[in-house]
This record gives sequence, structure tokens and C-alpha cells, in this order.
Amino acid sequence: MEITSYRITPIAFADPPLRAAFGLHAPYALRTIIEIETDAGITGVGETHGGAQVVEDLEAVRDLVIGRDPYQLNALEALIWPSGDHTARTSTPWTGALRSPARTFGAIEVACLDIIGKATGRPVCDLLGGRVRDQVEFSAYLFYKHAGAGGRFGFDMNPAATGGWSAALQQEALDAEALVVQAQAMVAAFGFKSLKLKAGVLPPDEELRTIALLRAAFGPDVPLRLDPNANWSLETSQRCARQLQGVLEYYEDPVDGKAAMAQLARTVDLPLATNMCCVSFEDIVETFQQGSVQIILGDHHFWGGLRATVELARICRVWGIGLSMHSNSHLGISLAAMTHLAAAVPNLTYACDTHYPWQDEELIVGGKLQFQDGALAVPTTPGLGVEIDQTELARMHQQYLDCGLTHRNDEIEMQKIEPGWAAIRPRF
Amino acid sequence: MEITSYRITPIAFADPPLRAAFGLHAPYALRTIIEIETDAGITGVGETHGGAQVVEDLEAVRDLVIGRDPYQLNALEALIWPSGDHTARTSTPWTGALRSPARTFGAIEVACLDIIGKATGRPVCDLLGGRVRDQVEFSAYLFYKHAGAGGRFGFDMNPAATGGWSAALQQEALDAEALVVQAQAMVAAFGFKSLKLKAGVLPPDEELRTIALLRAAFGPDVPLRLDPNANWSLETSQRCARQLQGVLEYYEDPVDGKAAMAQLARTVDLPLATNMCCVSFEDIVETFQQGSVQIILGDHHFWGGLRATVELARICRVWGIGLSMHSNSHLGISLAAMTHLAAAVPNLTYACDTHYPWQDEELIVGGKLQFQDGALAVPTTPGLGVEIDQTELARMHQQYLDCGLTHRNDEIEMQKIEPGWAAIRPRF
Repeated sequence: MEITSYRITPIAFADPPLRAAFGLHAPYALRTIIEIETDAGITGVGETHGGAQVVEDLEAVRDLVIGRDPYQLNALEALIWPSGDHTARTSTPWTGALRSPARTFGAIEVACLDIIGKATGRPVCDLLGGRVRDQVEFSAYLFYKHAGAGGRFGFDMNPAATGGWSAALQQEALDAEALVVQAQAMVAAFGFKSLKLKAGVLPPDEELRTIALLRAAFGPDVPLRLDPNANWSLETSQRCARQLQGVLEYYEDPVDGKAAMAQLARTVDLPLATNMCCVSFEDIVETFQQGSVQIILGDHHFWGGLRATVELARICRVWGIGLSMHSNSHLGISLAAMTHLAAAVPNLTYACDTHYPWQDEELIVGGKLQFQDGALAVPTTPGLGVEIDQTELARMHQQYLDCGLTHRNDEIEMQKIEPGWAAIRPRF
Repeated sequence: MEITSYRITPIAFADPPLRAAFGLHAPYALRTIIEIETDAGITGVGETHGGAQVVEDLEAVRDLVIGRDPYQLNALEALIWPSGDHTARTSTPWTGALRSPARTFGAIEVACLDIIGKATGRPVCDLLGGRVRDQVEFSAYLFYKHAGAGGRFGFDMNPAATGGWSAALQQEALDAEALVVQAQAMVAAFGFKSLKLKAGVLPPDEELRTIALLRAAFGPDVPLRLDPNANWSLETSQRCARQLQGVLEYYEDPVDGKAAMAQLARTVDLPLATNMCCVSFEDIVETFQQGSVQIILGDHHFWGGLRATVELARICRVWGIGLSMHSNSHLGISLAAMTHLAAAVPNLTYACDTHYPWQDEELIVGGKLQFQDGALAVPTTPGLGVEIDQTELARMHQQYLDCGLTHRNDEIEMQKIEPGWAAIRPRF
């Protein structure tokens, strides 16, 4: 089997005005779709981060992909990271905190596993040793937000797509009470059994009040997570921790960096989690040596693919580190890949993050994947179990061209609302 | 696809009177053959350690295997190690230094991967991400030994099976000069480009003299390894290290245990390697924390299968630990599995150990696999690329029954030559 075609398509889709430490989500989220065809007539698909640099990185390896047997993933990885030395990655043309070679290879790997799954008649999770669960649980990802649903006109949400949730999705939520309303609507619509609050946005006391109201509304059986995105000082993180002890399932990236997280870990009695200070295999040794976190949020999009994330999971098992899953704004191809991965990893015992409820657009045939009781059924059809609707893909590509965005910049979006706003961290 | 039959066959094959720290190899080495049939008419094979306990462990999981889809490996592993917690393995009915659940699961996993490879028309290395090399290098495994080739009559070696090597194989080698003759014959026959001496047998000065003669005979371009099997004291290991610095590729398990290896590591300028103080994922954290070794010899037979060893390889990459491969007396099914694994692991940069030249019997169709220039070509045929000759399997099973051995005990064998001999470590 040989790869005959490699199509990289940047897309944009409506994204609500969600707030985070970095600022404000733009009206469109960017993403990149990978389609790989083979001479066997089988096409595999992948989805990864968006924007011009991501496309450029994926295009840069085109000649390594065309003509390759999709099974020959180790050889491709070795070509993308010639030294095989994790620490040498940054000497490649790719740079940046999320290590583009890992992202580039990971996106291609998912598409190749989709091909292999289709060629063998097996769901992708079976290529990772098979499922250990038939349902993968996700958490409700709660955001402070401005009014609107994103997109060109601000309120172009398709009400049919998200059922009763669509009205709540559009509502402003800039205090604790509104956030609880959002949580109740999301849980009612999707059945999530744990809640994650994107924090580092409002003054910490308001975010603590939000957590308190969420606990009051949902009771102690619904795990709560708080993610200030490294926007709190050590002092703020310590002060808040005293009110969060015994309340949070985990405390995600309150402070910035391995050293500060380790310092915090020594002084608080809360499990610390990260998808910021440990985002690659190069980060692992120092993170573990310092004792920065008790939980890592894996993400196959930047850890180097599904197999690399399985290997991360083994590392977590061996060192007794918990494993959860990180998410960016994404569509159904990513969600399917995340679900296969989570199905195959025994120690992925936390409900996974997902931004998926915040999107109403979708480019997979059949429309959006449906959560049942906060979980997705692990696909049993060959490959990822999703197919691209080419009309929707073309539409979202045109939307990418039309929206004018080429990379994510939440700071600029925030400045459109608050001139002069700067993404200074820690803010609080 | 469903597993319909699970056959566990203990076998014995002639093994020469090789010496090691533990004593003497018995006239027969024991091994266990796993054959798994499916309702798709595909049979997969595996080979693992031998003896009654190994068979008992494999039989104990029969009900978990029959009826299972061979792709559902994670679920099977979770059933064999219910907690998923590495440290809890020893609370299962299996005990022993090499963690029987890892061995039991690993043997079944190889047979299942053989099935999957055959079902998909792919060599097993392709199920591990594909090859990064087409040839896998092995090292010449040199032993002090008594005269003879093992087996019922002591000298029943089949001269045709090993070519010019068979005469040398039968010769006594109990001093440095004889060991060099053995090395020259083995290298001439198989083309190995690195040499490993099983040490801890003769007084250390004679073993150092052996290394010196090997270096003189083969020159500085042929890497040398020395493995005293933890039969040296720390003092002896330190004294010998001074003569081995700049000579050895690595110094394998001179002393016993993580702490002593770490103490040695701090005082010598030689890379230390192990297949004794770090033999499971439970050992990893302490080994790394103490700095006991620079190189781990992996072995899919006791690390939990091929995929687990790929995960070990990732751990070694991340922590900057070298990776080599361990061997016990084995036949061609194990050798094929080792070759597929080594082909798929980028950082397995050392030539692999193998006892294979010491065996003249074989149960795979076509007879013994052939080394070319010290390497094996990675199979390109589906699965492991080997098939069982049922006549030979039956013969070797009868040999198991006839030889009367039920577990390996090198001490008792040694006592037959030297009454009262005891496997006290460290001896020197």
C-alpha cells in the first residue's frame, strides 16, 4: 500500500467568544484537515491545530509522505525528527512551545492509522491494543464568555445542532451565577458527570465563588476542575488552594512553569495537573524530578500521535502519575481520535476535556457526534469511524480564506473589546 | 475473529554445558511453545521460558484467552493484571523475580500479533509502527564451557546444522585462550561484529585476561561486553573496572542490585548495563533515581510482550538510557520476535544478545534462521514469518517428557561435576 495523495486543508468554523487567560476566542477557530489517499483506494483523515504555520509544517514533509506505506510510521517519524533525540527537536526548522514535529507527525499518524483500520476492517483503538472501555467519558468544559456564538454575524448558531444547549451557548456568562446556568444547560444537554472551569479570567475570588456555587448546585459527587492557565501568582494559587482543598478533583496549571508548580505542590494538599508545563517528552524528566504535578493532560495532537500518547500513558503508569486528556477547539475527526485513544488506555481514568459542545459546525458525514450521559460510544466501524463531508470541508475552507485569520491570537481579539488589554501572566 | 484453540507445549532441546555464575546449563534447555488458533483459520505462535511453572501460568489463563478477539490485548492484559498497577503484580498468584504475569501475557501477545500480522498480510514489525532498519545485528555470545554439545549423549550435535561452528561448539573452553578460539569460530561462522563474554565463572583475573586476548585478537573496532551476572563484589568490580575502562562497550551486571550498581556507577568510568537489577516496569523508577545503569537490556519475554518493550524503549529515549536486548536459550520463534521488535525500535542501537548459535535443534519449518554478517534480515512475510514443524515440535515435547527436567537449575547441574558446589553470589 502506497500513499498517492496528501491533502492539507486549513479550515475555520464559528467559535463563541470564550474567555481565557490569553484573552478572547476569535469568531472563528482554525483547524487543519489531513486527507491521505492510497493506491488501495483507501483514504485516511486527520485533524490538528489550525493556521498558516501548521499548514506550512505539514506541507514541508509532503515528499516524505507521498509514496510511503502508511504502516511505516517509525521511519517517517525518524525522518521528521532525524536525530531520534527528543531534546534535539528544537534544532529542526520547527520551533515553538508545542514542538511542531510532534504535531506534524501526529496528524499524519492519525490519518495513517485511519487507513490501516479501514484496510484491516478494524477500529483505530484495535491498532492500539484494543479497547478497555466501551464508553469514553468527557467533562463539561465551562467558560466565562461574552454574549454570542461566534461566526461572521456573532449569532449565527444553528439551533438545531445543539438542541436545548444552543440558547445557553449564546448567553453571556461573566459571573458565578451565569456560569452555573451555563453548566446546568450543558449538563442537561450532554449528560456530563464532571465539570471543568476555565479560570484565570475573572478576579480569583469570583472564580472561587463560581466553584462554590457549582459545588452547591451539583453536589459533591460531580468532580470539579479549575484551570487558571498559569494566570495566578504563586501567592494567589496558595491562597485559593486553601478554599479548594477537598473540593477540586484537580488543580490545573494555576501557576506558570515546572518550578512554580513544584513549589506549589509542596505547600498545598490538592492534586496538581498540567497541560502547560509538561507538553512533550522533553519535559518529562524535569517535571518528575521536581514533582511539579500529579496528573498530566495528554493530547495526541501535540504529544506526537496516538501511539506516542499510549507511551506517555505507560510512563504515567510507571511513575504513578495520573492521566487525563487536554482539548483545544476541535471538530469530530479529533473527537473520534481522542475517543479511540481514551478507549485503549487503561490508566486514562479521568473524564477527557473537550471543547466540542461549543461548536455547532461539523464536517463529518452525519453531523456532530452525540454524547450519551456525558460519554461517547467507542466506534466499532473500521478506522476512526468518521468520514468527511466534502461540501462542508470546502465550505469551512472558504470560511478560513474569508475570515482572514491565519493564526490564533486571543490577545488581539480581547483588545477589540477592551482596547489596550494585554495578556500579562500572571494577571492575579 | 475469535480464538478457538490455545495449545501450550513444553519442549526441551539440547543445550551445551555452558557455564555462568549460577552454575552449568543442563543437557537440555526448556522452553514453552504457544499456538493460538482462530475461527478465521489463522494460527499464531509464540515461544517463552520453559518448565512446569511457566506451563502452569499459561494454562491458568486459558479461559481468558479462548473466545477472545486477538486484537483485544489491552483487555486481556488488564485481566491478567487486574489492578493495572504495576506494583501490585506480585499480589497475583504468580510470583518470582521475572514477574510471571508479564511473561504470561507477553507470550500470548506475540502469538496474537502473529495472528494479526497474518490476517492483515503484514510482518509483525509493521504492527509496531514499522521497521527503521532492514537488518538486525546480533552479538557473539561467548561462554566458558565444558566439552560437549548437550543432549542425551553429550555429543549429539548435528554437524550439518551449524556448519564449521559445530566442532568449536563442542570444545571445552575453560581459559582465555580457548575462549578466543571459540570467539573466532563463532565470528567466522556467523559474522558477528561485537562480542559478549558471559563472566563471573573463572577467577576475575582470568576473565580480564580473556577480554585482553579478545581485544588483541579482534582489534578495537569490535565492541566487547562483559557480564559477570552479579557474581563480583563491589571491590572486585571496581578493581576490574580500572582494567576495562576504554575497552568495554558496556559492563553488564558486575554487582548485584540497584544500590550496588549505583555505587559502582559513581566510581567507575564505564557504561553499566543490566538485565538483572531492572527487569520490569516496577524497577524503573528506583533504577533511574539511583542512577544504577546507563543501559537496559530489554527482553519482550519478561517485560510483557513486544508492545510493552516498545514502551520501555520510549522510556529509555526520554531518560537518555541506552537500550540493548537480553536473551535466554531460545529457538527461532523467539528469535523472529526479537528481530521484529529490534527492527521497529529506533533507539535499540546495540547489537542484540542471542544464545541461538548454541542450539542445533530447531522446530520452525526450513530449519534454523541464518545470520548474514552477524545480522538477521527482518522478515517481510506476514506475521512473525516462521511456521512450526509439528513433527519437530512433537519430538521436542517428547524430549521434554523424557529428559525429566521440569525447571532450570544450573546449581544442581554444576554439582554433578563438582559435588558440593554452591551458587553463592558474589563468588569473587
